[in-house]
Amino acid sequence: MGLMRWRLDISYDGTAFSGWAAQPGRRTVQGELEGWLARILRLAEPAPLTCAGRTDAGVHARDQVAHLDLPDDLPVDANDLIRRLARVLPDDLAVRRIAAAPDGFDARFSAIWRRYVYRLADSLCEPDPLLRNQIAAVRTPLDIQAMNTVAAGLLGLHDFAAFCRPRAGATTVRTLLELAVARGQNAVEVTVRADAFCHSMVRSLVGALVAVGSGRRDQAWLESIAAAAVRDPSVTVLPARGLTLEEVGYPPDRQLGERAEQARTRRELAVDAGRA
Amino acid sequence: MGLMRWRLDISYDGTAFSGWAAQPGRRTVQGELEGWLARILRLAEPAPLTCAGRTDAGVHARDQVAHLDLPDDLPVDANDLIRRLARVLPDDLAVRRIAAAPDGFDARFSAIWRRYVYRLADSLCEPDPLLRNQIAAVRTPLDIQAMNTVAAGLLGLHDFAAFCRPRAGATTVRTLLELAVARGQNAVEVTVRADAFCHSMVRSLVGALVAVGSGRRDQAWLESIAAAAVRDPSVTVLPARGLTLEEVGYPPDRQLGERAEQARTRRELAVDAGRA
Repeated sequence: MGLMRWRLDISYDGTAFSGWAAQPGRRTVQGELEGWLARILRLAEPAPLTCAGRTDAGVHARDQVAHLDLPDDLPVDANDLIRRLARVLPDDLAVRRIAAAPDGFDARFSAIWRRYVYRLADSLCEPDPLLRNQIAAVRTPLDIQAMNTVAAGLLGLHDFAAFCRPRAGATTVRTLLELAVARGQNAVEVTVRADAFCHSMVRSLVGALVAVGSGRRDQAWLESIAAAAVRDPSVTVLPARGLTLEEVGYPPDRQLGERAEQARTRRELAVDAGRA
Repeated sequence: MGLMRWRLDISYDGTAFSGWAAQPGRRTVQGELEGWLARILRLAEPAPLTCAGRTDAGVHARDQVAHLDLPDDLPVDANDLIRRLARVLPDDLAVRRIAAAPDGFDARFSAIWRRYVYRLADSLCEPDPLLRNQIAAVRTPLDIQAMNTVAAGLLGLHDFAAFCRPRAGATTVRTLLELAVARGQNAVEVTVRADAFCHSMVRSLVGALVAVGSGRRDQAWLESIAAAAVRDPSVTVLPARGLTLEEVGYPPDRQLGERAEQARTRRELAVDAGRA
């Protein structure tokens, strides 16, 4: 008997979750989903879910991607499974799509990028209580142009140790593909896209941009800390509430297996690939 | 000593409010705001707030407009007042803007239209738990084109009695300026704009459109009930959670007083102008 791999697209309000990763005695996204999937599919024990971005406590996801291996003789009707999950899942967690995964697909290792958005209300934004669960507040007005200017200098392949919570044996070298700040009516949105993230990286990067945008720090400060090979205590890690994993990018189907192989090899030691 | 009129733009998540209008022993938007304004401004008693759209329990507002008359010798710094309100108001209620009102301005009677959006997740929408406080669910897929076709027939000046909770002595004649349905990624959005609304009108209109969009009813049914002069029990009033007052329209400043005079005269008996 073999296994069949399924892809799940998942959305959650992270406010009341202790993050993605299952932990004994804590309410987590992985724990809730694995428990309900086992119950609905009558599995002897929960089948492990592997996700693209293991979000921290309080961090949200609009489109998290995970995979799940099930016995290939288990009859699974994806639409029926979505409906049954919708009836039992708590209202801060939803499965948007379920589909048979293409050959070679691995939610974590096949991903070529993760896109996060951090939403901030500064003193120039008009508050929107309807979105308060996903926007963090800062007291000062932010200079968007100054933030974008310094953001451009961080793009590319670098060691982001200055912005990462250290983890033994894990590399902090990442490729930052996009770091852009835009002012909307209700929030300043910072889009951050990279091949992968180390722990607390998005919230630290945005914290550094906010320090510049509010005038507390300048470009020279950012360049000096970015060049350091260790985490800098002067970089603020912003609150989880403002952060949402928006989208995960995958290559065309025929490159999925190859990409997963590359990522596994290149980050053999990177136990935290995809953390944010 | 005279009075000076102020315009307030207000935003709230209606979930935990018993609507706009102050009621003894209930948590209401008007009650919270009048209480905090009186405390901050050290008024002997609360100054009454008059709003453009007296939303029902559970209905939200992105940009509700209200006015307030204060003694003209009271020193009021609008920006300072916004900051002080932000520190004390609960996080489901915010004052976005405060400004001296132009001559003749009346939040209720100067308004020329109110725009509401009703958000529905049908079975074709991907659920978004981050927006669950402002989207109502329907089980069937909705036919947007069928809904727009029948919606067009409701535009213009009509008696909307079929869609209104009756109220003694109140007219149910309204001018429906816009009724349009569009499918977004996470919700079907029904935009409803009229000069004013009678009680439960938006939620009943959208309920009738949903009956058609889901195939339970047809255009002939809608035309027959719309022609009746009494409320029709076959029209479902949809849940409050999906409804948001998005915007209130006013004429150019020099027409404010004239418009208020017209509206007061025309709707002398319409004690419920602006209800939704």
